[in-house]
Amino acid sequence: MLRTHTCGELNISNLGETVTLTGWVQKSRDLGGTTFVDIRDRYGLTQLVFNTDTDAALREQGRGLGREFVIKVTGKVLERSNKNTKIPTGEIEIAVEGIEILNEAKIPPFLIEDDTDGGEELRAKYRYLDLRRAPIRNNLILRHKMAQEVRRYLSDLDFIEVETPVLIKSTPEGARDFVVPSRMNPGEFYALPQSPQTFKQLLMVSGFDRYFQIVKCFRDEDLRADRQPEFTQIDCELSFVTQEDILNIFEGLTRHLFNKVKGIELNEFPRMYYADAMRLYGSDKPDRRFGMEFVEMNDLVKGKDFSVFDNAELVVGINAKGAAGYTRKQLDELTEWLKRPQIGATGLIYMRYNTDGTLKSSVDKFFNEDDLTNWAAAFGAEQGDLILILAGNTDKVRKQMNELRLEMGTRLGLRDKNTFAPLWVIDFPLLEFDEESGRYHAMHHPFTSPKPEDIALLDTNPGEVRANAYDLVINGTEIGGGSIRIHNKDLQGLMFKHLGFSKEEAQKQFGFLMDAFEYGAPPHGGIAFGFDRLASIFAGLDSIRDVIAFPKNNSGRDVMIDSPSTIADAQMTELKIKTTV
Amino acid sequence: MLRTHTCGELNISNLGETVTLTGWVQKSRDLGGTTFVDIRDRYGLTQLVFNTDTDAALREQGRGLGREFVIKVTGKVLERSNKNTKIPTGEIEIAVEGIEILNEAKIPPFLIEDDTDGGEELRAKYRYLDLRRAPIRNNLILRHKMAQEVRRYLSDLDFIEVETPVLIKSTPEGARDFVVPSRMNPGEFYALPQSPQTFKQLLMVSGFDRYFQIVKCFRDEDLRADRQPEFTQIDCELSFVTQEDILNIFEGLTRHLFNKVKGIELNEFPRMYYADAMRLYGSDKPDRRFGMEFVEMNDLVKGKDFSVFDNAELVVGINAKGAAGYTRKQLDELTEWLKRPQIGATGLIYMRYNTDGTLKSSVDKFFNEDDLTNWAAAFGAEQGDLILILAGNTDKVRKQMNELRLEMGTRLGLRDKNTFAPLWVIDFPLLEFDEESGRYHAMHHPFTSPKPEDIALLDTNPGEVRANAYDLVINGTEIGGGSIRIHNKDLQGLMFKHLGFSKEEAQKQFGFLMDAFEYGAPPHGGIAFGFDRLASIFAGLDSIRDVIAFPKNNSGRDVMIDSPSTIADAQMTELKIKTTV
Repeated sequence: MLRTHTCGELNISNLGETVTLTGWVQKSRDLGGTTFVDIRDRYGLTQLVFNTDTDAALREQGRGLGREFVIKVTGKVLERSNKNTKIPTGEIEIAVEGIEILNEAKIPPFLIEDDTDGGEELRAKYRYLDLRRAPIRNNLILRHKMAQEVRRYLSDLDFIEVETPVLIKSTPEGARDFVVPSRMNPGEFYALPQSPQTFKQLLMVSGFDRYFQIVKCFRDEDLRADRQPEFTQIDCELSFVTQEDILNIFEGLTRHLFNKVKGIELNEFPRMYYADAMRLYGSDKPDRRFGMEFVEMNDLVKGKDFSVFDNAELVVGINAKGAAGYTRKQLDELTEWLKRPQIGATGLIYMRYNTDGTLKSSVDKFFNEDDLTNWAAAFGAEQGDLILILAGNTDKVRKQMNELRLEMGTRLGLRDKNTFAPLWVIDFPLLEFDEESGRYHAMHHPFTSPKPEDIALLDTNPGEVRANAYDLVINGTEIGGGSIRIHNKDLQGLMFKHLGFSKEEAQKQFGFLMDAFEYGAPPHGGIAFGFDRLASIFAGLDSIRDVIAFPKNNSGRDVMIDSPSTIADAQMTELKIKTTV
Repeated sequence: MLRTHTCGELNISNLGETVTLTGWVQKSRDLGGTTFVDIRDRYGLTQLVFNTDTDAALREQGRGLGREFVIKVTGKVLERSNKNTKIPTGEIEIAVEGIEILNEAKIPPFLIEDDTDGGEELRAKYRYLDLRRAPIRNNLILRHKMAQEVRRYLSDLDFIEVETPVLIKSTPEGARDFVVPSRMNPGEFYALPQSPQTFKQLLMVSGFDRYFQIVKCFRDEDLRADRQPEFTQIDCELSFVTQEDILNIFEGLTRHLFNKVKGIELNEFPRMYYADAMRLYGSDKPDRRFGMEFVEMNDLVKGKDFSVFDNAELVVGINAKGAAGYTRKQLDELTEWLKRPQIGATGLIYMRYNTDGTLKSSVDKFFNEDDLTNWAAAFGAEQGDLILILAGNTDKVRKQMNELRLEMGTRLGLRDKNTFAPLWVIDFPLLEFDEESGRYHAMHHPFTSPKPEDIALLDTNPGEVRANAYDLVINGTEIGGGSIRIHNKDLQGLMFKHLGFSKEEAQKQFGFLMDAFEYGAPPHGGIAFGFDRLASIFAGLDSIRDVIAFPKNNSGRDVMIDSPSTIADAQMTELKIKTTV
């Protein structure tokens, strides 16, 4: 190595040693007759010193070092007079005896510091410089540690990591595929996998028993903060298991990661039925860092001539504890916030439980003090609380109230990034009706098994059929989901039929899997974790961008390498394709 | 779990326990009044027994179990009277008390045994059944162990695994890219990476210091046994290192893998200059499990009026030890073998050193006994040896002699799959002249640095410039290669110029990298291992196919899932492309 030590390892035990360090110039400053230069690498920061004892030319060279110059320095480890207890190398400094400039650097377009002055676009263009900043670099180191621990944990449980193909076959279910024209098979295309779902199931048919893979997956969907066209899954499948086994093993994995990577010991994960999650939180991924559960008020409010309530399918409220001090202006502003098209709630009704014990609602015209007292009791409200109420169509109003609950949680400081509230949501519906296409879609995917006792409902009431499906939710984010799969050809065929596939379509797309089920397919099930999301939660980030080394922007572009880009006509000719732009 | 134990773990210590096993019916047989059924899973094989003590109906059910049925059985662990010492469970059997058929199985299209009767195509179509066979499954388990050990070894050395993007930018250098049309950026394409080369270099610019990744790469090239359109690399890069550091670290990794995964302790790897490898073996990846080095004979053979030798640029021979007994017919057959178009050698000359001490050549007309004695001395030949000689253009004759040497090594049994002969080949040429395009190409890739002392030759004699490049060869297969990279913008620009790039082209394709070099790029270098090849060598296979779970055939097709395939017109419309087939 060009160095004897990294910039993070020298301390008082090295006093007097002659060492060679390599790294980047973080900053330099002159204090009286002394020049200090901080040299940085991935491992830390070390202070170099050039003082009156230093050769004059060398000191001049030290003063001339620009920010981000790459240097190699040799010198002696001295004890600092002015110690910095915040960093491991803070007790020592290096009295420089020689410098070699390994590479110069132009002035970077933004500050390479924990807090930078660079805007998002500039930092994206110079991602390689943004990655020099400790907060971003540490996210990737954290991610690495997580991946290592995932592999260790699963390997110790006899899971085998098997690489499944990236060039596969396009299927009509699910999101849009990215496709790859085949030169050797003109007119035909590969697709990039949205998940290795069918392959991992085939591995179970092959008897692999326990499979996992940390694997890139691809979806050609419109993008937002927590979506990227390519993303990474921790993909797992097991044979001869029940849902209970899977929940236990992967709860174990999650707790192991929190323990090993973050030093946090989590309690047993609570479990909640999907139906209860929708009723109490209006969401299949409730943020359980705080309570503020929904209270359904139909029985309390109907028949009092208030048409908004009387005409509503559902009247539902939450108790924002301690928020009775909200002013009229604040409540108006909240009402406006709810009206935004993303939420679309038309009217917010509230009741203050004032600190003097009085109750005051925005619908006092229709409800008397007894009514309001009953409301307060239903919410377990105390003096100082604020009840917020929405009314309307059940599905819509639950969604709106979910948004309001999360917003109030944020405003009341109940969503601390260092608190982790995991939750298993179980018993998802098998199917959901899609208004646009007028047919049922698989809520998870077409390979999810229905609960045996609900199979009969498939013909009569498909929307009521529950699946052997489960999601792992942390802090309101779905970080994993899976199911016990269908392993029987007839049941799989029935499922495709209910999803609107003709027999021929099903055979053409998934014939290989249904055929495989006829040659001795074991009962099996699995789960996939969104690794980017899990890492972002561990890193305390809202977006997955900064746990990805080279992410794409909202247009799917990598602005650093300027991709996608046009390709040569010769390439297209060879692939026998043309663009029609 | 549906089972209490796997099929590989019960032994004499479990006698008397009531256990539940799940797995596949391997085979069943009736012996007198007793029915034996072998049940198999990934972990092993256990014998089930139904005898006269067994309930008659249950025994009937046992006799009715077909091959590959998936079953769950409960029973008691008994000591076998007839023990099988070859398997860990061979001392016990299970007296069955209950069977549940979890899934039936049609008769498989080929035998699910170590030696199968299925042809290659049939097995490819039913890959999920072929994967049930222990030899194939064990390859993938071996591969998993190797990957785990790679990660452990490198992580312990402070390497960080960073995922680089799969959707990148098409570049004109190297092999053909697979491309992916971008829906959000119509008319533009992503490319799939042939390697993460530029990204890993950018990570060095970012200060990651030590990076690795086990990563899928893609090349749209015509296929053969050891090539797949998607393949896996162990990709590594380090900063502030010399070539010596890299050779040491990755020799350490390779030895670690051999030790941990195969229990083999390898000696220090020898090193050889590229020029010597070409001179002594006619190949940059010599198989060093055996000697049979080339002996150049120009000084010995010229000027004796044998025009074939006199007109040849190079006359070169090998000593096939102990092969003097080769008959005229065998030698004629070898001459024919050499004439095949893949090799294209026109004439084989030989000299036998007979066991009676006489020397006899196929060119006795031109060379007397003294000449032949000199030849024998040059080859260190002994009684019983056979000298084989080719003559012609240096490059061609070396290639031909390389083929002949390997063939003779095989025929003489010198290429044992359980012997491992690693070799570092160093000091590769930087450039090689390509007759077709009439210009120099990068022998490794355009980011490889020239030896500083050879830079001046770039203008005068580019073919003589040596690179800081190295390959790791095992048993004649290149399993890894890398270089110390260029980290200076001007030198990188010069390199692109010599590769025939205009300034504009270089900027358009690789501007982001050259820009990065201006912001403080550290000296760096790296290596990439072909993980499929390494795994195939560990598994003792000639092809990489069976260390890949779902490989493609020579037309790039996955015949199991029938991919690539046509896609819907609507998909193409959305992507704004058309096929021109």
